[in-house]
Amino acid sequence: MDPATHVPSLDDIRAAAARIAPLAQVTPVLRSSSLDRIAGCELHFKCENLQRVGAFKFRGASNAVFSLDAASAARGVVTQSSGNHGAAIALACRLRGIPATVVVPRSAPKIKLAAIADFGARIVPCEVAQADRDRVTAQVLGETGGSLVHPYNDARVIAGQATATLELLHAVPGLDVVMAPVSGGGLMSGTALAAHYLDPRIEAIGAEPEGARDAFDGLAQGERVTGRTADTICDGLRAELGPLTFAILRQRLRGILLASDAETVAAMRLIFERLKLVVEPSAAVPLAAVLRHPRRFAGRRVGIVLSGGNVDLDALPW
Amino acid sequence: MDPATHVPSLDDIRAAAARIAPLAQVTPVLRSSSLDRIAGCELHFKCENLQRVGAFKFRGASNAVFSLDAASAARGVVTQSSGNHGAAIALACRLRGIPATVVVPRSAPKIKLAAIADFGARIVPCEVAQADRDRVTAQVLGETGGSLVHPYNDARVIAGQATATLELLHAVPGLDVVMAPVSGGGLMSGTALAAHYLDPRIEAIGAEPEGARDAFDGLAQGERVTGRTADTICDGLRAELGPLTFAILRQRLRGILLASDAETVAAMRLIFERLKLVVEPSAAVPLAAVLRHPRRFAGRRVGIVLSGGNVDLDALPW
Repeated sequence: MDPATHVPSLDDIRAAAARIAPLAQVTPVLRSSSLDRIAGCELHFKCENLQRVGAFKFRGASNAVFSLDAASAARGVVTQSSGNHGAAIALACRLRGIPATVVVPRSAPKIKLAAIADFGARIVPCEVAQADRDRVTAQVLGETGGSLVHPYNDARVIAGQATATLELLHAVPGLDVVMAPVSGGGLMSGTALAAHYLDPRIEAIGAEPEGARDAFDGLAQGERVTGRTADTICDGLRAELGPLTFAILRQRLRGILLASDAETVAAMRLIFERLKLVVEPSAAVPLAAVLRHPRRFAGRRVGIVLSGGNVDLDALPW
Repeated sequence: MDPATHVPSLDDIRAAAARIAPLAQVTPVLRSSSLDRIAGCELHFKCENLQRVGAFKFRGASNAVFSLDAASAARGVVTQSSGNHGAAIALACRLRGIPATVVVPRSAPKIKLAAIADFGARIVPCEVAQADRDRVTAQVLGETGGSLVHPYNDARVIAGQATATLELLHAVPGLDVVMAPVSGGGLMSGTALAAHYLDPRIEAIGAEPEGARDAFDGLAQGERVTGRTADTICDGLRAELGPLTFAILRQRLRGILLASDAETVAAMRLIFERLKLVVEPSAAVPLAAVLRHPRRFAGRRVGIVLSGGNVDLDALPW
């Protein structure tokens, strides 16, 4: 199985759930009657901001790290990440007792860098451009003989992210829609696959910032969009789809909805106020998209994966 | 049974749990391994900030409102409250379909006033001094023939607040300590009684701001302290113990620990950062007290009731 091309099966997702059960949190699903009134539909929030490292990323990272055979694991894991995935790999490697190296662009938020370092990973800085990230990553892989765990274009990672939706659908049967933010597409791929396998009537809908709409445009034109520079406050949503996640989303997604940064900030504030949850801007994009399209969701039962809560509390965007 | 003097029994608390089960949330208990490392003990947070109206107050209010016989209920409920209890009474009355009147001091935070009005209660303003609150409340009771539900000196309210600890001890067996903030003492009385009935080895410890230490001083001198003016950012903790809550705490509390406002703000920020939860300052006082007394809690299993999450997001105190 080549993790860069394999589409996770239901068995893969169930195996991931069993593998990470001793490691990851079963996060709560929360509701707010006032948010339901505002949105005109029934919203169920899967709280991955309450996951370890404060983001869903720990699911995929721990599934990938604990999938490695002993000999590969001993040489360590290498990844590139602007933040949450790096912290997740760092913690998963610490739990398995193996070395982690995270290649991090110099633009990454301080809070996310600190988390990676706290979990004991080696941080190797790189420039922001994808080409430089890849060059530095290849160099580290060559030096260490370690295993690459890509943040999203990886079947083990996607299967891990899918476990959030397994839990959501188990906790809330009968959803009409599941939504997640789209960046590299790992979370959305896992979300869409889990929903498809468990109940193919459920619509999987992605949400993307207007300023990082590569998935929206790529799916519309049937070809992956690469090389753009994202312009959004959603620091977790600046990646572009990979070949594997593009293929999965093309097959399994009902659509992608866009939200402006202003709409996302308003939705983020509603989540703080009404759900009493700390979320990062990226996590609020699906709610922003729901509020922008009230007729599309009127009266429906909608599950939303709140992707993460790692936000700089000294720079809240309101 | 006079609610102003009756000490709730375990049966009263269990009846409250059954009565409010269709109304209130069973809130999650959350942990953070990084907070455990910082505190040097095992912390279990009962998330009443995720309760309806954003605070534990809904438990006691709904238990009291749904305890009324039909004839009394029809004349409505009257209370005085600087905020969360008022919103909780308003929602409980709306759910029962009866009128609510809330006497509110002019100093109450905007966010809390808006919540009371949103739930359809009539708001009657009064001055901050307790004498004026009581005068206006008596006047409204005379006009309406309604039932008074005191925010804390009431057995029905205390039994309702106790249900949070029933749930906590069910979710986390074997706690050594349970803690809650102390203001009028309704939450702490319920917390201490539930712990005592279910496992008398559990220590019940209160937490109070240095600037509102009437319970600390009153319990130390064996006599209730009244008439002080509180000086703390914890807007939920400015009340003083009532005769009933004083008697219960005197019998059931192992002690009260103090925290400065600066310590409380630091603890509040840790709860935002590590637990990803929005809490109001009052809710952070127990964690602040734990961090101030590391030796007292070292290695122990501590349950903390996070009392509420209604904070002005435009004026976070850091």
